[in-house]
Amino acid sequence: MKHLIFILSVVLFTSCAVQKTSMQQDKTAILKVMKDQEKAWSQNDLQGFMQGYWKSDSLKFYGSRGLTKGWQQTLENYKKGYPTKDYSGTLNFEVDDISQIENNSYWVMGRYILKRKVGDANGNFMIIFKKIDGEWKIVADMSS
Amino acid sequence: MKHLIFILSVVLFTSCAVQKTSMQQDKTAILKVMKDQEKAWSQNDLQGFMQGYWKSDSLKFYGSRGLTKGWQQTLENYKKGYPTKDYSGTLNFEVDDISQIENNSYWVMGRYILKRKVGDANGNFMIIFKKIDGEWKIVADMSS
Repeated sequence: MKHLIFILSVVLFTSCAVQKTSMQQDKTAILKVMKDQEKAWSQNDLQGFMQGYWKSDSLKFYGSRGLTKGWQQTLENYKKGYPTKDYSGTLNFEVDDISQIENNSYWVMGRYILKRKVGDANGNFMIIFKKIDGEWKIVADMSS
Repeated sequence: MKHLIFILSVVLFTSCAVQKTSMQQDKTAILKVMKDQEKAWSQNDLQGFMQGYWKSDSLKFYGSRGLTKGWQQTLENYKKGYPTKDYSGTLNFEVDDISQIENNSYWVMGRYILKRKVGDANGNFMIIFKKIDGEWKIVADMSS
């Protein structure tokens, strides 16, 4: 009996440890996507920035002007709002929280900080990442 | 062979139909939670309003003043900001989008509209619902 309890404890401990490591790996991978987005945006490479988003008509972006549906329309809106590097400037994300929702999904809460010639712009966001075909993609974005 | 294809088609069709119905049931249940929140809030029953949230220290609320952790602290903040019915007023949610994340999680994007004696207040939100012990609860909230 004592043996069984010992074995079960080891299995449970190992399983928890594996889960923790896997969550840490997920978070690292998600933060890497956001780092790549900062780099692309800061070169006014909006198409590159959009690689972090799910390339689907079901992507949802919710901003001060309401709901935008789809990857293509979201890109068009960014192109309109940030036509040159003077408008897009340098992007930095400050992450306040990253938490798991289910096995293959996380939310990230944070601030975006845009340093620009035409005037700085800051705001809050909550984005939802989902692992799709082995890659972490933003499937929903609310920015204020 | 034809038989097998027919049977597989029926199974696939039924499985899709069941999934759709179950998603519709989920959405109805989630909207019911939000209806109950409207009612409770509009009676300045903030504790009742908070029944829609996950009663956990891991609940996250992200607003203009940054990150709030935990159910209790979120309730305390609401109590401070909306001490009487004059401040809480009448709450209406306008839902713009409700989409599934994984099996037991959805996001809802929408607007809150507060009609109040001390002045109306409106804003956008994205909330994440998760099915916990058979009940739909908000686990994350970003409001602007």
